[in-house]
Amino acid sequence: MLRACSLTLVELAERLRGVLRSEGDRGIVINGVTPLDAAAPGSIVYVTNNAGCRIAESGRCAAVLANSVQAGQVTKPVIIVDDPRAAWMACLRIFTPVLTEYRGISPDASVDPSAVIHPRAVIMQRAVIMPGARIGAGSVVWPGVFIGEQAQIGEDCVLHPNAVVREGCILGNRVIVHAGAVIGADGFGYRADADGRHLKIPQIGNVIIEDDVEIGANATIDRSTCGSTVIGEGSKIDNLVQIAHNVNIGKRNIFAAQAGIAGSSVTGEGCIFAGQAGVADHCRIGDRAVIGPQAGVQLRRVKADTVYFGTPAIEMEKMQKILPLFHRLPELLGKQNSEAAREQPTGEGTEAAGRSPDF
Amino acid sequence: MLRACSLTLVELAERLRGVLRSEGDRGIVINGVTPLDAAAPGSIVYVTNNAGCRIAESGRCAAVLANSVQAGQVTKPVIIVDDPRAAWMACLRIFTPVLTEYRGISPDASVDPSAVIHPRAVIMQRAVIMPGARIGAGSVVWPGVFIGEQAQIGEDCVLHPNAVVREGCILGNRVIVHAGAVIGADGFGYRADADGRHLKIPQIGNVIIEDDVEIGANATIDRSTCGSTVIGEGSKIDNLVQIAHNVNIGKRNIFAAQAGIAGSSVTGEGCIFAGQAGVADHCRIGDRAVIGPQAGVQLRRVKADTVYFGTPAIEMEKMQKILPLFHRLPELLGKQNSEAAREQPTGEGTEAAGRSPDF
Amino acid sequence: MLRACSLTLVELAERLRGVLRSEGDRGIVINGVTPLDAAAPGSIVYVTNNAGCRIAESGRCAAVLANSVQAGQVTKPVIIVDDPRAAWMACLRIFTPVLTEYRGISPDASVDPSAVIHPRAVIMQRAVIMPGARIGAGSVVWPGVFIGEQAQIGEDCVLHPNAVVREGCILGNRVIVHAGAVIGADGFGYRADADGRHLKIPQIGNVIIEDDVEIGANATIDRSTCGSTVIGEGSKIDNLVQIAHNVNIGKRNIFAAQAGIAGSSVTGEGCIFAGQAGVADHCRIGDRAVIGPQAGVQLRRVKADTVYFGTPAIEMEKMQKILPLFHRLPELLGKQNSEAAREQPTGEGTEAAGRSPDF
Repeated sequence: MLRACSLTLVELAERLRGVLRSEGDRGIVINGVTPLDAAAPGSIVYVTNNAGCRIAESGRCAAVLANSVQAGQVTKPVIIVDDPRAAWMACLRIFTPVLTEYRGISPDASVDPSAVIHPRAVIMQRAVIMPGARIGAGSVVWPGVFIGEQAQIGEDCVLHPNAVVREGCILGNRVIVHAGAVIGADGFGYRADADGRHLKIPQIGNVIIEDDVEIGANATIDRSTCGSTVIGEGSKIDNLVQIAHNVNIGKRNIFAAQAGIAGSSVTGEGCIFAGQAGVADHCRIGDRAVIGPQAGVQLRRVKADTVYFGTPAIEMEKMQKILPLFHRLPELLGKQNSEAAREQPTGEGTEAAGRSPDF
Repeated sequence: MLRACSLTLVELAERLRGVLRSEGDRGIVINGVTPLDAAAPGSIVYVTNNAGCRIAESGRCAAVLANSVQAGQVTKPVIIVDDPRAAWMACLRIFTPVLTEYRGISPDASVDPSAVIHPRAVIMQRAVIMPGARIGAGSVVWPGVFIGEQAQIGEDCVLHPNAVVREGCILGNRVIVHAGAVIGADGFGYRADADGRHLKIPQIGNVIIEDDVEIGANATIDRSTCGSTVIGEGSKIDNLVQIAHNVNIGKRNIFAAQAGIAGSSVTGEGCIFAGQAGVADHCRIGDRAVIGPQAGVQLRRVKADTVYFGTPAIEMEKMQKILPLFHRLPELLGKQNSEAAREQPTGEGTEAAGRSPDF
Repeated sequence: MLRACSLTLVELAERLRGVLRSEGDRGIVINGVTPLDAAAPGSIVYVTNNAGCRIAESGRCAAVLANSVQAGQVTKPVIIVDDPRAAWMACLRIFTPVLTEYRGISPDASVDPSAVIHPRAVIMQRAVIMPGARIGAGSVVWPGVFIGEQAQIGEDCVLHPNAVVREGCILGNRVIVHAGAVIGADGFGYRADADGRHLKIPQIGNVIIEDDVEIGANATIDRSTCGSTVIGEGSKIDNLVQIAHNVNIGKRNIFAAQAGIAGSSVTGEGCIFAGQAGVADHCRIGDRAVIGPQAGVQLRRVKADTVYFGTPAIEMEKMQKILPLFHRLPELLGKQNSEAAREQPTGEGTEAAGRSPDF
């Protein structure tokens, strides 16, 4: 598999500023980092409680990160640290596989002469950079990426293979765009004519992605009709998420996979959208609101600091009182109505599992 | 950003066949068009009511499109038109940024000698055109696009970067395929053998996309098992939509983002599928039916001219009577059952916000 | 359209090991295979019941596959077989269009000298193979595909156009990856710092895809934080499905289109996830469990051999008792509460159809 470094336990303890519990363990070689429940020979794990210690003891890991309290419960080699999870994440960085390093512009890239590529940017083979585009220092454009005319990519960005950034879109610094993501496709806007035909409304705006944003694989962020679709600083967008035209995402939002937000909606700071959540168009989502998994927001205003759930989404606090009663409907209402129910089967539930094609 | 034209207000009034209210405003320069709530210096907006007039007055726009009635409420420069919204959309076309124009076949495209490319078609660098494919007059194939063997692209189509049209698929005229969309991947069909293995059913049909269809970024339209998956004339498909094998979409349908329709379902004319809506396999959707956001249709027949909502989806009219009672269950059923409820917490609601990974 | 072979009916009967009912039909030419409800001239269809026989009789097909019982109800030319559906699927293979065959490495591919390509592998133009990658015998890499550093592709795999397999990921034998799918993008993992910023957790693991797996167009399978995200042997993943980091999918699972499963969840053997179903993180799904369409699993454990439905998902058997009562709430609770309901409209349902943008 990928080449990762290997370190002795004493070297690793130094890098982590931790304490090696036993000098006799100095020379043990660590060549990877694993989760507790998938430990591999040669790997280091971390524990934060007694249950974790038991799993580590019986597992295949070579060493354990623990604080001074938990360390006593482990007989395997231990590096004692204040915050085992933070130390484990540092290990993830230390053991990150080293890939071949590339520099400059591949002769096999297609770069328009009018594009401005910083000398410290990397443009790999098969990438296409259109006229007037700008790529900042330290940014890496992987193969198959398309950067449209006059698009601007800031510093230290990474655009993974086959990502697309269309004309005029602007990315800040340290933006990561994963493979296959599409930034700046036309917004979905039409006007019906007298005959019911959908006439396309030109989508002449762009997308602005602020610093430190990450965009997941095959996610789509549409350009605005006019003005800009904006993704606020530090927001993280997972795979297959849809951000529609003219949406304005605040700072440090989280969109889990397959969530979607429709046209012109605006979110505050620190909002969280769980997997497959949806937000209708022209909604306003308050700061730090949490939209639960598969919830469907149709409210024009969502309160700050509040959790929502359901379709249509309501406050979680209310839903938590409703759902137990919903689940007990047969007990609460069924007895006196059981005969009627038998006579009037709706049948709609019974097809529920019939969705999978060809099965 | 992108180069857009700029016009004086009198020039713009002429283009729009409107009336410039004040001759003194003739020379004002307009260089863009914006929505009312995101007006920028130099831009023109439109108003259709008094509230809009107030926003325009206090905003940064350079000029306003209004009808003769509303014009009286605006002191900023005004072009008087019959239909301000239509005039504003004409402005979107007028101010559409001008991109570099390309002609003919890029020497850096990979075009099979047996492909038939119209002299007025444009094939850009890195595009791949396989044997026997045909590209009609005026169509533009952007970089990274793949056109499979014997595929046919009509006239005045646009295939955006990295879109894929697999072998034998047929696109009509004026079809727009956005970046990363995949047309003609194998339908999802298997047959279980005696040991429970899923044996692949060959998918030897194709996809036919009729005139004036638009397909969103990263959408997927599967080829049929045999015969054709069809997208009817004038239908508009948003980003990340899934159209399964053997589906037949009628004319002028709308599929909002992330909606999906399973194998062999058939839709009428003018149907609307809101965001994240789903339709099971082998359903028939009546003309002009509306499937609400996140609704899940499992009915074999959906009535024409009817709105559906919920999972499983039922008629909206019925759902509107049910939902208020659902939301009031604690009040209606909770009192006499509150103790029992407390003793039997289902707990299922409480994990609702736990979907977001690593939070 | 695509070139398919044509056979006389007697030739086809031999290939299918069936019996041609009438010698007079020997010379009839069959050039395609169609579903019963979309029969075309020259095509063969299959019937399994009387209704099917009537459709075949009135349709345009040239011949019919039937068992000896049903054959009596058809006057059109018939090949008698034991299992008409199996014979029809054999026809799908027989009539699969023949595409141009390619061999070896296209001079227009970008293959790193350190990559190991089997002599019987096919690397088409515009494909990119990074250092140290391995491609096994009989595997076909279509144009625009990216194979990352040290990635391993087994034997007889097909990677359709513009698919991406990132560094270190491992595919078994006979794996099919459809166009635009992304395997091995970073998992969605962050840690909040004291200021609420989301710090990226390095994702240093990989994806392992076992033998006979099929991955749909534009699907996304994330690499693990460390260790491996695993897709078990024989599992079939449809278009636009999301498999998050550290997920472990068992053997022979089915994920229908747009389903998603969040981080670290584990599924048993033979599970089925219907369209748009979702599973939260850290769940365990029992063998052969069925998660219904749009169902949202938030339970930490899902029972084997059980169907689930709803959000939050509960056992289908329970849901089937609840839904009829839910649908009858106006009748069961509405009468005595109708006035109160009228006074306290929630309004939330009424916006349900308002999701489609710009309509």
